[in-house]
Amino acid sequence: MHTVRLTLAYDGSGFRGWAAQRDRRLRTVEGVLTETMSEVLHEDVRFSVAGRTDAGVHARGQVASFVTSNPLAPERIQAAINGRLGREIVVTNAARAPDGFDARFNATAREYRYRIRTAPWPDPFAGRFEWHRPGELSIAPMRAASRTLLGEHDFASFCRHPGADRSTVRRVTRLTVARQGEVVEIGIRANAFLHQMVRSIVGTLVMVGDGKRDPGDVARILAARDRAPGGQMAPAQGLTLECVVYGRRT
Amino acid sequence: MHTVRLTLAYDGSGFRGWAAQRDRRLRTVEGVLTETMSEVLHEDVRFSVAGRTDAGVHARGQVASFVTSNPLAPERIQAAINGRLGREIVVTNAARAPDGFDARFNATAREYRYRIRTAPWPDPFAGRFEWHRPGELSIAPMRAASRTLLGEHDFASFCRHPGADRSTVRRVTRLTVARQGEVVEIGIRANAFLHQMVRSIVGTLVMVGDGKRDPGDVARILAARDRAPGGQMAPAQGLTLECVVYGRRT
Repeated sequence: MHTVRLTLAYDGSGFRGWAAQRDRRLRTVEGVLTETMSEVLHEDVRFSVAGRTDAGVHARGQVASFVTSNPLAPERIQAAINGRLGREIVVTNAARAPDGFDARFNATAREYRYRIRTAPWPDPFAGRFEWHRPGELSIAPMRAASRTLLGEHDFASFCRHPGADRSTVRRVTRLTVARQGEVVEIGIRANAFLHQMVRSIVGTLVMVGDGKRDPGDVARILAARDRAPGGQMAPAQGLTLECVVYGRRT
Repeated sequence: MHTVRLTLAYDGSGFRGWAAQRDRRLRTVEGVLTETMSEVLHEDVRFSVAGRTDAGVHARGQVASFVTSNPLAPERIQAAINGRLGREIVVTNAARAPDGFDARFNATAREYRYRIRTAPWPDPFAGRFEWHRPGELSIAPMRAASRTLLGEHDFASFCRHPGADRSTVRRVTRLTVARQGEVVEIGIRANAFLHQMVRSIVGTLVMVGDGKRDPGDVARILAARDRAPGGQMAPAQGLTLECVVYGRRT
């Protein structure tokens, strides 16, 4: 058996997220990829994935792995998949991985980027990958608030539907807020993320940036460990999974 | 009467070019804009435009003008149009212009940019605005060839269907070839352009870049004043009208 690791980029606009749905009419990244890969390898394939992106979320450096009995070289798998898929989903890298490698369980960190366009009008060129939210944001209080979230915390306040008995503790190792022209970009890295955690954090930071909340409120929201006092949730289309880290350094 | 000047950005992917077609089922930028503007101003509007972009060609700094008896402030016209149109076409600026201003006849130069992705795979993020043409291009011979085209020449060899009695002489004032990572970008400025002139020039430069033609061939193609010996034509989706210049300096 051969373990293969794929790096994937996709425009999530046309997909109901990564995870395949029972209803096959719902187009998902995993669904499209599984079907195409099974054609190419002439056997059923099951993926493990580092980031189960939601409907409308994009990826530049998603990582998925699978095990196959087919000895086809990874570069040929890549060429066959890309030749069938066009530019919505692209395999940017394919390589043999050590036996037992698992894209989800071996990942030590994930990094997401969120783009907010603050200009009065959207951008026809980048608009598919941004949240258009007109009106200036103050960067300094957003940065002050973001420092509260660095480190290991219970992020139950920034999570939708946590499982009743699952831990909601995560370790955020980087959280940056930067303005580039009319775009505010929020970068966030953590060992792992809860469901809709990035979009909840971004929504809250935006409320700080436009003065609806104080930076100090974010510490109180975090301490509450309850979704209710949290802020608005930012829309999916501004969110991109940038990369996944394997190995010790996070 | 009031003369209004609009600066426009659009993703041309979903349009049959700028120019309105007799068959109204064909969606064009001018058609959509004329209909929306006539609604906003409660009167029929006719545009003059600096660059009649072809089907699939994009614009970042297109300029159009019109005359209206409606005294509505340009910023309000802009807000009304953008509010109705979403992000495919965006009015990035609207201003009163002097009486007699005409976006087409007063323009002294137009600048286009053409993007070619040479990587083996397309890019899901920028792919709508690039020609994906896998395989390395040599920049130095492309630059050598491009110098041949600078200045005032008869560009009949780089034009589709010139009118029988119309001049095909144009003045190219800038022509740059640059590599940025896996993208080769060609920038070209001229007083005006013939139909499909940029795409013909790009197609020929690409044949030089991949060794199918010598840089010296380009001088012979130019001198022939005939489309037949010209190279391939680059596809529309890589082409963007970047800006239009008014005034003496070009």
